[in-house]
This record gives sequence, C-alpha cells and structure tokens, in this order.
Amino acid sequence: MTQSISTKVKKAKQASFSLAAASEAKRNKALFLIAKAIACSRELILKENQKDISEAKAAKIPEALIRRLKLDEAKLAEMLSGIKDLIALEDPIGRILARTELDTGLILEKVSVPIGVIGVIFESRPDALVQISCLAIKSGNAVMLKGGSEARRSNAIFFSLIAEAAGQAGISNLALQLLETREDVKEMLTLHSYIDLIIPRGSNRFVAHIMQSTKIPVLGHASGICHAYIDKDADIGKAIAITLDAKCQYPAVCNAIETLLVHRDIAREFLPKAAEKLKEKGVELRGCKRTKEIIPSVKGAAEEDWGAEYNDLILSIKIVDSIGEAIEHINTNGSHHTDTIVTQDDQAKRQFLAEVDSSSVIANASTRFADGFRYGLGAEVGIATGKIHARGPCGLESLTIYKYRLAGDGHIVADYAGIGAKRFTHRKLA
Amino acid sequence: MTQSISTKVKKAKQASFSLAAASEAKRNKALFLIAKAIACSRELILKENQKDISEAKAAKIPEALIRRLKLDEAKLAEMLSGIKDLIALEDPIGRILARTELDTGLILEKVSVPIGVIGVIFESRPDALVQISCLAIKSGNAVMLKGGSEARRSNAIFFSLIAEAAGQAGISNLALQLLETREDVKEMLTLHSYIDLIIPRGSNRFVAHIMQSTKIPVLGHASGICHAYIDKDADIGKAIAITLDAKCQYPAVCNAIETLLVHRDIAREFLPKAAEKLKEKGVELRGCKRTKEIIPSVKGAAEEDWGAEYNDLILSIKIVDSIGEAIEHINTNGSHHTDTIVTQDDQAKRQFLAEVDSSSVIANASTRFADGFRYGLGAEVGIATGKIHARGPCGLESLTIYKYRLAGDGHIVADYAGIGAKRFTHRKLA
Repeated sequence: MTQSISTKVKKAKQASFSLAAASEAKRNKALFLIAKAIACSRELILKENQKDISEAKAAKIPEALIRRLKLDEAKLAEMLSGIKDLIALEDPIGRILARTELDTGLILEKVSVPIGVIGVIFESRPDALVQISCLAIKSGNAVMLKGGSEARRSNAIFFSLIAEAAGQAGISNLALQLLETREDVKEMLTLHSYIDLIIPRGSNRFVAHIMQSTKIPVLGHASGICHAYIDKDADIGKAIAITLDAKCQYPAVCNAIETLLVHRDIAREFLPKAAEKLKEKGVELRGCKRTKEIIPSVKGAAEEDWGAEYNDLILSIKIVDSIGEAIEHINTNGSHHTDTIVTQDDQAKRQFLAEVDSSSVIANASTRFADGFRYGLGAEVGIATGKIHARGPCGLESLTIYKYRLAGDGHIVADYAGIGAKRFTHRKLA
Repeated sequence: MTQSISTKVKKAKQASFSLAAASEAKRNKALFLIAKAIACSRELILKENQKDISEAKAAKIPEALIRRLKLDEAKLAEMLSGIKDLIALEDPIGRILARTELDTGLILEKVSVPIGVIGVIFESRPDALVQISCLAIKSGNAVMLKGGSEARRSNAIFFSLIAEAAGQAGISNLALQLLETREDVKEMLTLHSYIDLIIPRGSNRFVAHIMQSTKIPVLGHASGICHAYIDKDADIGKAIAITLDAKCQYPAVCNAIETLLVHRDIAREFLPKAAEKLKEKGVELRGCKRTKEIIPSVKGAAEEDWGAEYNDLILSIKIVDSIGEAIEHINTNGSHHTDTIVTQDDQAKRQFLAEVDSSSVIANASTRFADGFRYGLGAEVGIATGKIHARGPCGLESLTIYKYRLAGDGHIVADYAGIGAKRFTHRKLA
C-alpha cells in the first residue's frame, strides 16, 4: 500500500523534532552503522545497480548518464571514506553562537539547530542518495529523497540499508522518506508548510525548473556564468596561467569561466599570447569587435554570448575601457557565482572584491578554487547563488539555523516597564 | 511622468552595487543628514501629516488606524533618537566571519555584505518608512518602499527628505524607491530576479497575504500562537506570575500567550489560583474537558481554540498527561514563535528547550521577553518564524549575507590536481 506524499511529509516533520534533539553520539552512530551496512552489502548493491544499468542500456539511455549511474568497488570505497570523514567533522548542531545576560539570572543563548525537513531531488547518481542522507543525519535534519528513476533499484537498496541502520542507532526511520515518481516531486514542491528547504542536484535546466516550480526556498544555483577580468596592471604571466586554468582545467563545471574581460590598455600585449595558448588547448574564441581588431581570426561574439554558460571549450572575450565597466558587465551579465580579477594594483583589487556582487570574488587566482573541498568546508552540500541564508560553496552549516533559548527564574516583563522599571544589563557572555 | 516598477527596481538594483561598497562613514553620514533634515522640517512634516489625518477622518477610517497614522513632536523626537542609536551601532557590513589560509599566499575570507535590494511593504505608520530606510542604509541595502495610501503625504515628505539627505552623503538616491499603488506592490512581488527579500509590516492577515503572493523570500511572521506550559514540578508562584505577564502585560502583541498547557499532577493546585488572578484581569478562559472539571465556570474550548491567535484577553487552557504531550501540542498547534516552560526540574527544562521547535524557547520567564530590544539586538527589523536565513527577533544582521573573498598570487587549481599535486593547508586564521 503506497502512502500519499503528504502523509510521508507529515511523518518526516513529526520525526524531525526528536531527530533535532538527538545527541551527536547517536547521529554519528547512525553514520557508522550506515557505513557498516553498505560495506557488508557490497555484492547486493552492485547486483541491484547492475539491473538498473542493464535496463538503462536496453532503454538506450545516453552513455554519460550510464557512467553516472554505474557503481563499482572504487565508488563504494569512496562513499565509505566520505562517511568516515563526515563522522569526524565537528558537530554543526548545538553550537552557541552568542550568549547574553539580559539581567541577573536571565540568560539568552543563540544556538545552532537543524532546519527541519529538507527535500532533496537528484538526477541519476545513486551515490548522491547516500551522501545527502548522511549530511542530513549529521546535521539532524529529516529528508525527503527523490532520485532518478533509472537508478530506482540502486536507490531502493541504499535507502533500505540507511533507514534500517538509522533505526538501529535509535533515530526514527520516519525521518528518511523515499519518493517514487515525478508526480511525488510535484506534490512535495507544494508542501511548504512541512518542507523547509529544497536541494536540487542535477543539470542547470533541472535546477532552474525546480526553482520555478516551488515557493519553498531552494539552495542551489541554476547557472555558473563566471568571468576573469584582466586589469591594465595585470602580470601577464599570471593572467595567462589563470585564464587557462579557469577555462580549461575542467570546462564542464560551474566555476569555469565563460567570459574573459580585458582592459584596453593591456589587450594588445595580453590577448595574442593568451589566444595562442587557448587555441593550443582547443578553445573556441568569440570576441567583441575590438578583440577582432587585435586577433582577426576569432569569431564574432553575439549579444547572447555575454549571458551564455558554455560548459565547454568556448570562451567569449570583451575589451573594456575601465575596471568600472568590467564590474558592471559582471554584475549585469553574470550569475553571481564566481569571478576573478588579475591585477598588481591594490586599489583595483579592493574595488573589484568590494563591488562585484558574486558569492565568490577572487583576486589573482583561478575561479576553479570556488568549491567546498578547496575552501576547507569539510563537506559540500552544494554551491548557492541566492542572497539569503547561505551563499557560495555551502558546508554543513547551510543545513542549520538557530533558535534562541532564554532561561530565567520567574522573570516577567512587567518588571521592566513603567515607573521604577528594572534595566536590562545586556552583558555579552560569549 | 511615472516610471514603471520594473524600471524603478532595476535602478535600485544598479544602485545597490555601489551602496554595498559604501564606507561605514558614508552610510552613517547619510543617517546623520536624514536626522538633521527631519529635525529641520518638523513643521512641514506635521502639516502634511495633518492633511493625511483630515482625509482619513473624512473617509471615516477606524480610530485605531488614525492613531497609528498620527505624528506629533514626541513621535518625531523618538524617531530622531532611534536614528542616533542606529548610527552608534556596530557596522553590520564588512565583518570578517572566517579567515582561512588555503595555501601559502592564498587567503580566503568570509565577509558580511548587504543582501542587495529589499522590498518593504507596511501599513499606516509613516514612522515605519523612516525606520526601515535608515536600517537599510545602515546595512548597505537598497529599498523599495510602499506605505499605506492613507499616509500618502506623510510618506512622500519623509521620502523626499531621506532621498535628498542620502544624496548629500554621496549615496545614490536611486537606492531608495517609493512605490505608489497596490498594483505597484503586486508587480514588485513578481520581480524575484531583482528583489532579494521582502519585509512586510502590518496585521497577520496582511503578512500572510504577502507570503502567499510571492516567490521572493519573506522575513516575518504571519501569526504568534505562543504557549506557556506549567510542568508538574513548577513553582506555583512563578507559574502564576509568568502566566499573567505573558497573557495580560500587552495582550495585543505576537509574543503574548494564547494557550496555557498544564500538567495533570499540578492542575488542581495551580489552575484555581491562576484562574482567579486571570479573571481579576478580565481574561476570558476557555478550557478543555478536564479543566472544566476543576473550574466548572470556564467556557468549553473548541478544537479551533488550539490554533487561535486571540490577540486579546482570552486564554485557552488544556491539561496534559506529560511534558511530551505538551511539546507535541506546541509543535503541532503553535506557530513556532515563542513558548515557555515553568518548572524546577532541570531535565524537563532541557527537554523542552531542545524539542520545542520555536524561534524562541524559554524556561521560567515570560514569552513577552522575545523581542529585539529586550534581547539586546540594538535595532529590530522584525520577528521571523521561518526556518532559513534569520529566525526570532531579527537585528541588522538579518539584512546581511556574506560573500567569499579569495586573494592569491597567481594560484591555479591545476597545481593541486594529479600526480605531485600541492596540498591545501586549510589553516584557520580567524
């Protein structure tokens, strides 16, 4: 008998209250038992995964998707080591963010707590189910999980192992709920009284679709239109190295650059050298009119190029008259993800870092550094480009919020009002 | 010639980038000049306000609304002192929240920045326009302002004084935009690419309507269904004092209690004494069946009473069998605003503070303490009951987010990949 989605969500919400109060030891024990269960069930997991793959091949699903779907011993080992690392991470819950004495014996604490119920929707990769479930348990959040239908069997076996292990550790397995169909997702996206945050994992198009389909806050980014700006006072060697790294080191990812902005005073010196190296790497260049004057062989850039995310070996190039024009171009055409300036001028550096409205702003380094592992966050939940809650590469902290705890000894507000009122001390204790 | 709302919003967005980079001195100077302009234009302000009041009276607008609309010398003086306090507050912008060395010469900073453009919609009170504009300028945010149409002239004079003073301080007056009509608001609520946060100020119904009408994140609360739970180990004297304060000290506000939960083991001792005091204050009591057995004179509570926000001298009372039942009642029927337990039992206190899922959870003190001034936040933007970004009484910090600033010296990611890869140091510097 299938339960309705609203029944599942209500159960998850109910379970979220006790999970929020679960001790760190209990949550880490659940992670330990999950790793153990996966390690002991390797054969079964790979067998179920093989069935998914056979079916996907029979359905002529694209090869790239099948690669993401496929599990092997190496991937399983990586998952287990990921869980081990997660257990070792500092507890994100119960941190005292501030402590204030309001008056003698009346102590206010601001303390980190889980968000509640998180809805996670991901494409293809069954390892994402394990990773997200473990991040949720570590941070005390209930989760509604929906994976790609092509990974149905792999997801089901992982889910049953995780729910059972969580139960053994004393965490209600109602805190983890697996959704089955696209209709389930549609319904979930309407349940904003029960679900506090949606995390989509997949293509830009997929994320944009989810963002447009719900009023529940979404943690993520729909596009990564990143820029490198080569200032007039750039070191040419560094500028070329950073441009090549930011475009070519892994062009398919969101923090690779799509547009190169070049100050007019350095363009004649920098662009021919950079273009030569970029062409050696197989990069297609699309330049503005002034770029074409310097390198006649480049294609002309159309207006659409300034807002395009190629995720490929293509780079648009624009010559600008000033750092101000570069900043305005980025703020207007970019996706507020990650942008870098290359310059030896401290003033220009400061201006760029202050005025570019992106989640990561960089000076004299590659945009490719913008991710949770490289930033040392321990675990990455995703990269967000929104302007509230969490921004940029998001660690476990992005799955938490805070509450105020106030402890008194019979204190009432009437004593602090009117004639002869007591005064608050507002003494910071932490 | 009237500008379209999307034109106004785009201008505000554009201006928000330079406002975000404005120095603390410049923002405080704007506040100083605003206070000066208001002080110098008292007569004009009161004259325009008088016209609004005459029109409102002619239109037979309710007396309570006219009281909120009316300005006088005392209110103006209070506004000016509020601006002075705001100038003295610590800058919420540019705070280094974390600093990490990723590798030698590659330094990552997480720094507080303004959110961007905030849409503020408020009813009646023209002083709200001044307060919100000043909070926005202090925190470096652009604002779209829409006040009640009955305060049209008062809002217009305040707005022109503020925009001019901001301009004199070197802040683009495009960062402040005044909306005129309800249709303007409707359009603004659809512009989620330009507006980062909506703050509604007004009745619960008004706030709930705004929350339902937009995909832009909303900071606020639609209802305040707060509880006091009198545990079996409560001190009777404190329990009565806290109940009276939480219900009667100011019954019209969101942090007053609406429901009293009483453990069955203390009900026969506590309830008759509490009921007597509450009745003396004119409070109408509505009790569950078991409450009526103890105090036959109370009205019977209907199922709707457990989810009602009376904002008046009415209190529903329910006897529960355990602290667990009390917590479940609060989490299910409450509005996650503010709830208190009265108990001498440390274990019960800890359980309540951990498991009640509200923005403020309190032990042995009145729910009425839950506000920005009493919490010592300096300035209160509002009280939020959402689960992301900011929660509970919100200070200036709720108008900020962070960005990552990374400064290197030509660092590229390729050096940290593959054979012979450099290792990150991830050394915490702050």
